[in-house]
Amino acid sequence: MAASAGPEIERLISLLAKLPGMGPRSARRAALALLKKREQLLVPLAASLAETAEKVSSCSVCGAPDTRNPCSICSDGSRDNGLICVVEEAGALWAMERSGAFRGKYHVLGGLLSALDGVGPDALRIAELVGRVRGGEAKEVVLALPATVDGQTTAHYIAERVAGSGVEITSLARGVPVGGELDWLDDGTIIQALRARRPA
Amino acid sequence: MAASAGPEIERLISLLAKLPGMGPRSARRAALALLKKREQLLVPLAASLAETAEKVSSCSVCGAPDTRNPCSICSDGSRDNGLICVVEEAGALWAMERSGAFRGKYHVLGGLLSALDGVGPDALRIAELVGRVRGGEAKEVVLALPATVDGQTTAHYIAERVAGSGVEITSLARGVPVGGELDWLDDGTIIQALRARRPA
Repeated sequence: MAASAGPEIERLISLLAKLPGMGPRSARRAALALLKKREQLLVPLAASLAETAEKVSSCSVCGAPDTRNPCSICSDGSRDNGLICVVEEAGALWAMERSGAFRGKYHVLGGLLSALDGVGPDALRIAELVGRVRGGEAKEVVLALPATVDGQTTAHYIAERVAGSGVEITSLARGVPVGGELDWLDDGTIIQALRARRPA
Repeated sequence: MAASAGPEIERLISLLAKLPGMGPRSARRAALALLKKREQLLVPLAASLAETAEKVSSCSVCGAPDTRNPCSICSDGSRDNGLICVVEEAGALWAMERSGAFRGKYHVLGGLLSALDGVGPDALRIAELVGRVRGGEAKEVVLALPATVDGQTTAHYIAERVAGSGVEITSLARGVPVGGELDWLDDGTIIQALRARRPA
């Protein structure tokens, strides 16, 4: 680090290095950019982070970060209460929203079950989901979880917990991504896409 | 972006995306990590940026960012006032300091001369350097500027401006980097290393 630049800059660099995708080198570059663009970047970013820390909290219904509670999606009357899309993190929720194809509500788990990392059902918002499903007007739960071992373990666990409530459980379709070249796809995806083939 | 997450989070993402090495996707990932690690990351980073904005300024002598003015290097009496190392940005100064091989003072230009980007001598701290050299006890100016067209243009310009003041102008040696494989080096470096060869 820069022993000469003072403890404040060193602390800033070590905090920036904790952001995903950043390492010590890129954190130094980022700190330099911040120091150089003081009024355009450093001051606004400091204010934005302070405002986020102060105003943004987790929605008590779905768990998504928002300034409102319940969040803007949960309190949107034009959305279908009968449809709950279960996602791992808010990033997946944002991706679903960008697609513009989903007009129901969400449930953010806050992670996935993982035997390796010691993440059990109590560490996730699964009890809240079961409560929503059993107590509410939900007709379908769409599991939009990653196609990984942890993602599928979590999906199976949720399906088991919700079973018997009369609610339909679905998953996102697996297949060839739009724009995907067969040559670059893994075998598992090709096998699933072939099994689920449809009339053209 | 995430139209649903509120303007505060959108603003945070767009500011994070301005950091070097970040794009819209990685800025979203960083924002999510900040929201998820509120107490360990979001709150400390907000405080650190605010503290940096408040306390760190440019040293009036050398131009390096520091909480003190003159900075800790300029006010370090054990360092050689006769030796001034000229660097483009504070990042280069920090790299020199990490090497532990330089015990003189520094001068941060704040950029390089660039005809393409319209950066002239007045945009850099060149007049301040000339003032330091002519008015001070400097015996040698070490130009530690990048081996690019802009870096070399800037080095020549500075050498010209300082010429006649009786101060020696030197540059960092060019050659094979430590650990460098000849196979991976560009021709220019090999040519320079060969010309400047020394008895083994």
